[in-house]
Amino acid sequence: MVVKLGVIGTGAIGRDHMRRCHRVLAGARVVGVNDVDGAVARSALASLDIDAQVFVSPHELIASRDVDAIVVASWGTTHEEFVLAAIEAAKPVFCEKPLAVTAQGCRRVVDAEVARGRRLVQVGFMRPFDAGYIALKKTLDGNQIGTPLIAHCTHRNVSVPPGFSDAILVTEMLSHEVDVLRWLLNDEFVSAQVVFPRRTANAPAPLRDPQVVLLKTAKGVRVDVELFAHARYGYDIRCEIVGEFGVAELPDPPSVLLRSEARRSNALLVDWKDRFVDAYDAELRAFIDQAATGSASGPSAWDGYAAAMACDAAIGSQATLEITPIPVPLRPALYQTKRSEA
Amino acid sequence: MVVKLGVIGTGAIGRDHMRRCHRVLAGARVVGVNDVDGAVARSALASLDIDAQVFVSPHELIASRDVDAIVVASWGTTHEEFVLAAIEAAKPVFCEKPLAVTAQGCRRVVDAEVARGRRLVQVGFMRPFDAGYIALKKTLDGNQIGTPLIAHCTHRNVSVPPGFSDAILVTEMLSHEVDVLRWLLNDEFVSAQVVFPRRTANAPAPLRDPQVVLLKTAKGVRVDVELFAHARYGYDIRCEIVGEFGVAELPDPPSVLLRSEARRSNALLVDWKDRFVDAYDAELRAFIDQAATGSASGPSAWDGYAAAMACDAAIGSQATLEITPIPVPLRPALYQTKRSEA
Amino acid sequence: MVVKLGVIGTGAIGRDHMRRCHRVLAGARVVGVNDVDGAVARSALASLDIDAQVFVSPHELIASRDVDAIVVASWGTTHEEFVLAAIEAAKPVFCEKPLAVTAQGCRRVVDAEVARGRRLVQVGFMRPFDAGYIALKKTLDGNQIGTPLIAHCTHRNVSVPPGFSDAILVTEMLSHEVDVLRWLLNDEFVSAQVVFPRRTANAPAPLRDPQVVLLKTAKGVRVDVELFAHARYGYDIRCEIVGEFGVAELPDPPSVLLRSEARRSNALLVDWKDRFVDAYDAELRAFIDQAATGSASGPSAWDGYAAAMACDAAIGSQATLEITPIPVPLRPALYQTKRSEA
Amino acid sequence: MVVKLGVIGTGAIGRDHMRRCHRVLAGARVVGVNDVDGAVARSALASLDIDAQVFVSPHELIASRDVDAIVVASWGTTHEEFVLAAIEAAKPVFCEKPLAVTAQGCRRVVDAEVARGRRLVQVGFMRPFDAGYIALKKTLDGNQIGTPLIAHCTHRNVSVPPGFSDAILVTEMLSHEVDVLRWLLNDEFVSAQVVFPRRTANAPAPLRDPQVVLLKTAKGVRVDVELFAHARYGYDIRCEIVGEFGVAELPDPPSVLLRSEARRSNALLVDWKDRFVDAYDAELRAFIDQAATGSASGPSAWDGYAAAMACDAAIGSQATLEITPIPVPLRPALYQTKRSEA
Repeated sequence: MVVKLGVIGTGAIGRDHMRRCHRVLAGARVVGVNDVDGAVARSALASLDIDAQVFVSPHELIASRDVDAIVVASWGTTHEEFVLAAIEAAKPVFCEKPLAVTAQGCRRVVDAEVARGRRLVQVGFMRPFDAGYIALKKTLDGNQIGTPLIAHCTHRNVSVPPGFSDAILVTEMLSHEVDVLRWLLNDEFVSAQVVFPRRTANAPAPLRDPQVVLLKTAKGVRVDVELFAHARYGYDIRCEIVGEFGVAELPDPPSVLLRSEARRSNALLVDWKDRFVDAYDAELRAFIDQAATGSASGPSAWDGYAAAMACDAAIGSQATLEITPIPVPLRPALYQTKRSEA
Repeated sequence: MVVKLGVIGTGAIGRDHMRRCHRVLAGARVVGVNDVDGAVARSALASLDIDAQVFVSPHELIASRDVDAIVVASWGTTHEEFVLAAIEAAKPVFCEKPLAVTAQGCRRVVDAEVARGRRLVQVGFMRPFDAGYIALKKTLDGNQIGTPLIAHCTHRNVSVPPGFSDAILVTEMLSHEVDVLRWLLNDEFVSAQVVFPRRTANAPAPLRDPQVVLLKTAKGVRVDVELFAHARYGYDIRCEIVGEFGVAELPDPPSVLLRSEARRSNALLVDWKDRFVDAYDAELRAFIDQAATGSASGPSAWDGYAAAMACDAAIGSQATLEITPIPVPLRPALYQTKRSEA
Repeated sequence: MVVKLGVIGTGAIGRDHMRRCHRVLAGARVVGVNDVDGAVARSALASLDIDAQVFVSPHELIASRDVDAIVVASWGTTHEEFVLAAIEAAKPVFCEKPLAVTAQGCRRVVDAEVARGRRLVQVGFMRPFDAGYIALKKTLDGNQIGTPLIAHCTHRNVSVPPGFSDAILVTEMLSHEVDVLRWLLNDEFVSAQVVFPRRTANAPAPLRDPQVVLLKTAKGVRVDVELFAHARYGYDIRCEIVGEFGVAELPDPPSVLLRSEARRSNALLVDWKDRFVDAYDAELRAFIDQAATGSASGPSAWDGYAAAMACDAAIGSQATLEITPIPVPLRPALYQTKRSEA
Repeated sequence: MVVKLGVIGTGAIGRDHMRRCHRVLAGARVVGVNDVDGAVARSALASLDIDAQVFVSPHELIASRDVDAIVVASWGTTHEEFVLAAIEAAKPVFCEKPLAVTAQGCRRVVDAEVARGRRLVQVGFMRPFDAGYIALKKTLDGNQIGTPLIAHCTHRNVSVPPGFSDAILVTEMLSHEVDVLRWLLNDEFVSAQVVFPRRTANAPAPLRDPQVVLLKTAKGVRVDVELFAHARYGYDIRCEIVGEFGVAELPDPPSVLLRSEARRSNALLVDWKDRFVDAYDAELRAFIDQAATGSASGPSAWDGYAAAMACDAAIGSQATLEITPIPVPLRPALYQTKRSEA
């Protein structure tokens, strides 16, 4: 069966998903697109040589009988509305993060999906589809290091666009760490605290950069996450889990070992888009396979909700410097099943 | 455009290519299959839930108007015949190695393709599609180490099936090294010499294991290739290129760094099938994309011919222990263009 | 000139220093020893085949005209008394850590040395004499990573003796981190906070293990130190400094890269005594060379005092969980000069 | 006991040994020196602030009752004469390599030492005293990789002085490989063959650079040694031993892992003098300890003789390109004992 996709939002990310679903991955076809700017939608189709219908209304696209499943890649502020509409239409929907711009918005999606009684939403957290994180997860699940006690994480960018605020640092960078750690550790975060190291001279005011976020889980695991938006030297994602009898580290992407100019070196990535390029394929692969059965898997609306609550607490702590509790609401039965990404 | 594929040979490898082309990669569909045992062909279709025609005659499959391009995964002894038929039908053909069981057979394929005047054959050498080798190639082509002077290669298996002879060691293991080195170095081999180290007690007689093959290229580069079929500890492919001002090494597949039991360690692969799994996808991706244009790219019939001649020389040297010349015939214009795998 | 040493305390550590000064390092000779148990002192001399005088009184040894310089390796509670006596005698003294069992005791030593007007005391913090830390220091001082902003440190032991308390965790493990970081960063600590991760089942109650100590320096650098006394897998000291445009890591001790049993691995140390064995030689080498001039260099009484104050704050935070300030008293002119270990 | 040393040859190497024996290592004292140029000898003493007798005649120095043991660091052509004189005087002698400039000269030393009936000569092959090689040796002796079958070695220099010939490449670079491999493998070399890769443009004519030397041992182990005198990028010594069930690699010297400028890198050495600096200390440490007993250990005259014969064969093969046999004479009983460096 070929899944017929409708794509809402045909900017850079939407276009990339269109290419991926149409040219790379078997089993799907883009049949409809919508963009707030119709010309952009038409240009996306033309540039990819895709023959599909341009919908003026995103809601008509969602409702169309020709469309089996939805990909939401429009502006973040519109995500909640389109995901709710897809749930209403009982269609699987892949939604780029954030699921909604507030935790309450995420909760509304959760409630709608629970009311529908079946998983329809996959949130675009791609790290659980990265081969390195999957290998790390297997190491933990295979009890190769014992019960996890501590996690040390770093998330460094070369630089970020102007206008990046302390809050955006959390929603853009921390949210991925939160999601992948909840999955790796099979645990929930209960508090967050932000501490501010010496500021780099390379970050434009008023951004405080770097920051260290200290998280605690329900099981007592302590996590420190270094967020460094202007690390200059490369895009570097690291994760080390300390267990009762061993320690495991996320692998770096492979690269040629070069001996030259008195150094033995490996190239590091500088562009974040290169880091998880295979994971983007894999998350869509999972979405298409599951959509063919009329459902969804992978990071859920509940995961989007949990990430939003943790980010809210971290943003709160940026102002107060206090240890800030993260709510841990009762998990609905729909989300009891373990994720099956690996 | 969707390329309609006919697959000849539906054993393990053929079946894997069917799955790949039908379920993983966009742009192709398996429409016809043939196997020397029709029941095997039907079972392959059933197990993969593919709806396609079972051809009793491979030649009818090749000739069928419903079939755009051919994948040959039958026994090696039949490759030449089917590839020649595909060329005759002017259809792109992906042929698992070997292209033919003799160098003369490869030459006949070359001559037929040259007579047709267009690239139609892609040989199943997958290493040039491996991300690690591509990165190594970029390092060389980007002049990061200067002119290559020496290459040190190792090819170690945990073990091999019973009946593995000295000659099979060359055709199964050395041929891949020969092909990927010709591509990496953009050079031709002119001589081969085999030396026999102390024999491992773990190899069944009469196989001499390990072996070291010393190759020389037209440009004077010296290559040593360690072939070790019963290395026990893992499946390990390494390649180090020594240039005039630097040295570059093929990256190992990424794996979790584990600290446990007084060791800091990375898991090694033990099954060769896991090593190039992404490269198999990529070589078929290239075949499908090119077949859509009615042509072929990647490792050519000429490359298959060159590999066969180098292997013949190595097998000769196993008997004589002499430095054995490798013929370097004039390269037809059809094969002048550089390969574009990377 | 040969420096004539008097050694107080001839247990395991004292005996090791005697061996080192007598058999390994040029320029010194052990001429007198004292131990609370005279039989132990005589046995130490006999086992090392050293011909030296056994002093019944440590103070007579310190005062003896035959003795140029003192090595204090007796119980920690006696250190302050003997160091003060050596200062009184104007003799260079190498004192195993702690310099004194309280910060006030350290301060008394500082005051006495300042009153003497010349450096006489070297405290046995050996890490600044470790080749790896020296290389890291050069990386920082050579501005290869820019201004330091963050440090991530880990200090893991296989296990520790019974009776190890939360406070001992700080004085035995954290004190080394504090000293070497002050030296690396050329900075002072201003606050400490302890957080308690999930407890390992491998630590005997009531020890809380592991612990994470969060430190802040006067320049704003944030340091996290993981102390894990029962890490089981090995003795592992790591230090990563994050700068404005680069990151530097302390090298691991070199070891053979072994490929075996499906792993590529390096042995880790399990006994802490092996980790800094060359650094013990180097710190005594520095002491002997400097003692020949009638003075001392390396970690000073001031450094011992600073470490004691930081440890006191960390121990306080273990009880309160609060961010606890560390006093930063005015540094006397005697200690203005930079350390010259590297 | 303090060993009283006489040093013959007070150029760079001799002076460095004087410093080492006088200032670094316990248990020795330089009491006499000789140099072909007396002013050089006096200047060496002055620069090191050593109070010792300047002998006009090297033979008087060797014979002097004030001298317990000899260090020979004069020109290579004089080594044989001085070592023979030391044996005649029954004094332990440390001789920088080469032991003699011909294999026959080495044999004469062997015969003289055998006639004396006790080990008196230590040849200055320092690699068996390097911590990395010692760890590698332990890995082999501990049967961690099984029976050795193959060794891959590289010896790369940044550059070498003008006038370096093909023969000097062998005596200066290959000789160390030969000695350390004989020790590591506990085996003898039986043949050598040289092959010439493409020549680097960075080597001055007529030196052929790089070269690959293929060696075979009595037990059948195959060794390939890459000698590359103008590798430009660094001084790089590597050694990989392939065994029946595992592979072990010589550790690189430790260095800071630096993340900067889009690379993760470790500094490589560029000056060969830095590579084995600790091994030079250790070989003299062993010499002094053994000289105190009136004997010698470590690399023997026999080892010097064996290295000379292997080098002769390699030099022969440079001319003929043939596989050239290496004589394996009967080993005198004096040299039956295994070396005890580790």
